[in-house]
Amino acid sequence: MKKVSIQGMIGSFHYIVATNLYGKELELFERNTFDEVFEDVKNNSAEVGIIAIENSIAGSILKNYDLLRNYDHNIIGEHYLRIEHNLMALDDQNLEDITEVRSHPMAILQCQEFLKTLNVKVVEVPDTAGAAKEIKEKNLKGVAAIASKAAAEVYGMKIIKENIETDKQNYTRFLVISKENIKVENADKTSIAVELPDKSGSLFKFLQVFDSFDVSMTKIESRPIIGRPWDYRFYIDYEMDIYSDKGKVLLDFLKKNSVEIQVLGSYKKGLREY
Amino acid sequence: MKKVSIQGMIGSFHYIVATNLYGKELELFERNTFDEVFEDVKNNSAEVGIIAIENSIAGSILKNYDLLRNYDHNIIGEHYLRIEHNLMALDDQNLEDITEVRSHPMAILQCQEFLKTLNVKVVEVPDTAGAAKEIKEKNLKGVAAIASKAAAEVYGMKIIKENIETDKQNYTRFLVISKENIKVENADKTSIAVELPDKSGSLFKFLQVFDSFDVSMTKIESRPIIGRPWDYRFYIDYEMDIYSDKGKVLLDFLKKNSVEIQVLGSYKKGLREY
Repeated sequence: MKKVSIQGMIGSFHYIVATNLYGKELELFERNTFDEVFEDVKNNSAEVGIIAIENSIAGSILKNYDLLRNYDHNIIGEHYLRIEHNLMALDDQNLEDITEVRSHPMAILQCQEFLKTLNVKVVEVPDTAGAAKEIKEKNLKGVAAIASKAAAEVYGMKIIKENIETDKQNYTRFLVISKENIKVENADKTSIAVELPDKSGSLFKFLQVFDSFDVSMTKIESRPIIGRPWDYRFYIDYEMDIYSDKGKVLLDFLKKNSVEIQVLGSYKKGLREY
Repeated sequence: MKKVSIQGMIGSFHYIVATNLYGKELELFERNTFDEVFEDVKNNSAEVGIIAIENSIAGSILKNYDLLRNYDHNIIGEHYLRIEHNLMALDDQNLEDITEVRSHPMAILQCQEFLKTLNVKVVEVPDTAGAAKEIKEKNLKGVAAIASKAAAEVYGMKIIKENIETDKQNYTRFLVISKENIKVENADKTSIAVELPDKSGSLFKFLQVFDSFDVSMTKIESRPIIGRPWDYRFYIDYEMDIYSDKGKVLLDFLKKNSVEIQVLGSYKKGLREY
């Protein structure tokens, strides 16, 4: 059984990604924080960790960029997931019975329009799946959770209303991290962290390399360099296998135009619905 | 008296910026959230609002980038402040009397090394200046606050130990926002929000304009475009007066290489210690 560490519990979005990638027969480590996931991978408790890195509405999870750099782990895969929220309760409950709705603050925020149509008390809890689990275990009538279909299935809850999220273009991109530097077959995407020379136009010159090689950059994120105020480290994703001949030459040119490059991983692009 | 809206209260870092810019004779609006500051400016309660935009350790305050775009306000100035933390208590207290330290979670985090040398209970509260104020008002012996020198002065607290922050290179950049589009004399910096064509190399082509004009870009930040997953809006700062002849021509070229540009403001660079 694959040993997988996730932030969240069974039924969470990280859990759905884990099962999509490795099936339901998992040795799962359910963690409260991303730091713990990185630690599980570091001390070999888990073979892989799964971490959300950006959401199409909320943006990047900056903390995880910092963790990717600070730990010596490798990105070996990515996975996109549509974030769907569902209202669920005990089997004998219907919409008119519900007087209280519980979920994670982000899920509550993303279902604001639907919640406005109800006359209920809204309660924030640490996670979506946990809300479903507690309602089931304590047999709480009149209380509903906002969570994934997987959570409803795992905890035996009835879905009262599905897809209650306001913005349907709600996707999250996840990364799979490993301690070992596994060479991914047919990799076509690479993530790097880069420090550039402290002079005008250095980012432009760096991006020129991608242009010269006709390689697409899919993401750029900036983070402060601690101890060097107003100087930034860039996190860049580009569409290229770093182990290919072209990829190696490209990396050499990138190195020539930077002070330091850390390769975070080369992996296969996840399937994007959007 | 200048009407100024800030996030935080008298003695907070936003307050220090307000007094540095406009003196101590202020009509001050002390707000809990940045949204309220933007609202104060919108409904003319305040002439200007002061908002932190990035810290040299924690990075950008992404929410404020979104607010800058969503409100039709103008950036009319920037200000850099060194973030110094100090341990303060009632007049008759010394370090050995202290059994409890209160402050904002961020300040606590930034003084971790110092706090480890004490044997005290650490309590998180909503803001640094508020911690000082409460200790004074309730005459709490044995309790210290981590806050600014301004807070010590305003609330009559004794500084027991100054500059207790771990990393001394701790600066925050603040922006001054106004509803009116005031033309700033001798402006030399401009902030824009830009959407680029959805094709490979569009960011490179955009930055090429700065290079051609020999204009320095000081900051680039990306945020998701809601409803268009994996497409990003860039927030860019560059060193140029948008009202100058060269600035106008530059802007025309930037427009040609983008789908949409929103000018957030053109203003005078703040004085940087670092």
